[in-house]
Amino acid sequence: MRNSPTLMLKKEICMANIKKMILKAQKSKVVLRPHFKTHQSLEIGNWFKDLGVRSCTVSSLKMARYFASGGFQDITIAFPANILEWSDIDKLSQKIKLNICMESLEAVNFMEKKLTGSVGVFIKTDIGYGRTGIDAQDLDRLNTLALAISKCRHLVFKGILCHAGHTYSAKSKGEIEAIFLDSQTKLIKIKEELKKKFPVILSYGDTPSCSICEDMSCFDEIRPGNFVFYDEMQVGLGSCTRDDIAVALITPVVAKHAGRKELVIHGGAVHLSKEYILDEEGNPYYGVAVKFNGTEWECQKTIGRVSRISQEHGIIAIDSAGGFQAKPGDRVAILPIHSCLTANLMEEYYLSSGEKISMMPKV
Amino acid sequence: MRNSPTLMLKKEICMANIKKMILKAQKSKVVLRPHFKTHQSLEIGNWFKDLGVRSCTVSSLKMARYFASGGFQDITIAFPANILEWSDIDKLSQKIKLNICMESLEAVNFMEKKLTGSVGVFIKTDIGYGRTGIDAQDLDRLNTLALAISKCRHLVFKGILCHAGHTYSAKSKGEIEAIFLDSQTKLIKIKEELKKKFPVILSYGDTPSCSICEDMSCFDEIRPGNFVFYDEMQVGLGSCTRDDIAVALITPVVAKHAGRKELVIHGGAVHLSKEYILDEEGNPYYGVAVKFNGTEWECQKTIGRVSRISQEHGIIAIDSAGGFQAKPGDRVAILPIHSCLTANLMEEYYLSSGEKISMMPKV
Repeated sequence: MRNSPTLMLKKEICMANIKKMILKAQKSKVVLRPHFKTHQSLEIGNWFKDLGVRSCTVSSLKMARYFASGGFQDITIAFPANILEWSDIDKLSQKIKLNICMESLEAVNFMEKKLTGSVGVFIKTDIGYGRTGIDAQDLDRLNTLALAISKCRHLVFKGILCHAGHTYSAKSKGEIEAIFLDSQTKLIKIKEELKKKFPVILSYGDTPSCSICEDMSCFDEIRPGNFVFYDEMQVGLGSCTRDDIAVALITPVVAKHAGRKELVIHGGAVHLSKEYILDEEGNPYYGVAVKFNGTEWECQKTIGRVSRISQEHGIIAIDSAGGFQAKPGDRVAILPIHSCLTANLMEEYYLSSGEKISMMPKV
Repeated sequence: MRNSPTLMLKKEICMANIKKMILKAQKSKVVLRPHFKTHQSLEIGNWFKDLGVRSCTVSSLKMARYFASGGFQDITIAFPANILEWSDIDKLSQKIKLNICMESLEAVNFMEKKLTGSVGVFIKTDIGYGRTGIDAQDLDRLNTLALAISKCRHLVFKGILCHAGHTYSAKSKGEIEAIFLDSQTKLIKIKEELKKKFPVILSYGDTPSCSICEDMSCFDEIRPGNFVFYDEMQVGLGSCTRDDIAVALITPVVAKHAGRKELVIHGGAVHLSKEYILDEEGNPYYGVAVKFNGTEWECQKTIGRVSRISQEHGIIAIDSAGGFQAKPGDRVAILPIHSCLTANLMEEYYLSSGEKISMMPKV
C-alpha cells in the first residue's frame, strides 16, 4: 500500500455500474455513448469496449485524440467546438468518426470553410440547464442552423445534443423525473419538426436522470459519465447508494485533535477538489470519511465528514467511535463529493491488488 | 499561441514580486524561506536561487524530493509529518538539510526509533487559525514536546512553525495587522520560554501578513508562498493590486449568449479550480475575465466575472463593452481566484514568448 494519498478503485463495483447502464440502454434500445471525462483512462475505456461499447463522449479535443489513439473510432466532443482548433479537428476527423457540437451560424460557416474532411455535427441545445446551447423551444433557430449545416460539404448534420445538468440541483427523485419528462417532451417536438427534412439523432446526457429514470426509448443515445464511479453527490441525489461508489481517496491521518473531535489528513483541495455539499445545517463538507481496513474501504463504517480543506490539509469532523480510535499513521478513506474532479486531480488509480490504472497525461 | 486553455506567466511581474519580498526580509533581517507549493516549478525555484534565496518550504515529501533533485539543499516540509513515510524522510535527510513538522509525542517517539540520519524538527503551532498544531498558548505542551525532541538522537529541535491562515478570512488590512500582532505576541512569549533551554527559530508564514505588514524582525524566518503570483483573493485582501498578478488562464470563447450577457469559455473546474469569492450580493465568482490582446493580458480592461463553472465550461457574466465585443474564436484571460490551485491544475506555464516553464510531474 502506498504511503501518500492514493485514489483507490474497486473494479468490481465499477464493472457493475457499467453493466447496469449497458443493460438500461439495451432495454430502451438506445446507444450508450458514455462520457469518458469522468475516468479519463484508456484502460477503463477498454472495460467498456470489452462489454461491447464502441462509441464514447469526451469534453475536449485533447481527450478525443487520447481515446482515438487507444482505438476508439467513434467519438463525440460534447462541448461547443473551439473553432481555433479547426486544424486538429480536421486531422482527427480523417482518422475516426468524429462528432462536434455547434450552436451558431458563424461557427458553422467558419468551420465549413476551413475543413477538408467530414465532421459530424450535433446542435448543442439548452434543455433548461441554462449553461449553453440554443434554447430547445426556439424551433426557428434550431431549424435554421440544421438547414445551414445540412447544406455543408464538410459538416454533416447528426442531430440534437443536450445535457440536463439542472438535475444536479434537484431536491428529490421526483424533481429529476420531472426534468427528464420535460426534456423528453421538448426533444421529441424538435425531432418531429426536423425529421421532415433530415434524419435526427437525439442525444441525451447526465448521470442523475440516466440512473433514476427507466425508459430512455424516446432518445437515440444516452451519454451519462459519472455513473462509472458515482460519488457522494449522486448518493444525495438518489442516483445510487454509497455501496455503488467505486473510488475513494486513501490517505494518512497526520494529526489528531481529540478535544475538538477532529482528525487532520493529507487530503486537500489538490486531491479532492473544492467541490462540496451542504449539510443539514448549511455547512459545506468536502468528502465522507470511512474506515480503511488495510485492503479496502468499508463504506458503511463512517468516521466523519471532511469539514474543511486547504491546499493539502483536510480536517475530518469525527462523528463516530471509529473516528475517535483513529490516530496519526492510520489510513482512512474519503468518499469524494465529485469523483470526476477528484480523478482529474489524482491522475491515476490503484486497485486493491496494487495494480496501477493510468489516465490521460495532462501535459 | 496555443489554442487550448493555457496558463500564461508574466515573468517580469513574478520577478518583481520575488524581489519585493526578498527586500522586505532583508530589511527585517529575517530569512526568506518561500513556500514553493504555489509554483511547484524548479525553473521558478531557480529564479529565487539566482537572487540569493537558498532555502525553501514545501507541503509534501514528494515536493521536497523534487526540489532536492534540482539542487535545493535546505528544505522544510511545512505539513504534519506523515510517519508512514519515515523511510523516505530518512533517505532524503541524508542528502539535504531537511526539516519536518511534528506536534505529538507519539510521532516523535515513532520517528526517533525509525530514523538513522538527522532530521530537523519544527513544532507545528496553532496561532489562531485552528487547522492543526499545538495551541500557541499551551506553553506546557510546547515545552514538553520541545524537551522530548531535544533528547532525541535523530531528531533535532529547530523551533516553532506556524501559519496564520486566518488572515485569509480577514475583512480588512487592519484585521490582518491585528492577527499579525497577536501572532507576534504569542510567538515571542514561546521563544522567551523555550530559549532558556535551546536555540529557537521562529518561522512564520502566510502571504497576506507578509505582504501587508512591514516589520518582520521579531521572527527568524518568513514563509509566504502565494506572493510569487498573487491572485484575485489577495487583491481582495489588500495584499497586492491587480497589476501584481503574474498568472492568468488564456482561454477561447466558445459560445456567446448576448441576450443574457454571457460568454462561454473553455475554462472550468479542471483549469481554475472551484475556489470562489463572494461578490457584493453574496454570489460566488470563480475568476475575473480581462482582455487578452494576442500577446498578453491587460488587467485593467475587465470583461466580466466567471459566474459559474462546471468541469470544462466557464460562464462569464459580461459587465463591460469589452465583453459584448468578444465572440467565439476570441481569447480572453481569466485572473484566478487562487493561483496555487490553478497552477496545480494546469501543470505548466507559458511565457508570452511561447517559452514553456515546467512543473513537478504529478505521477
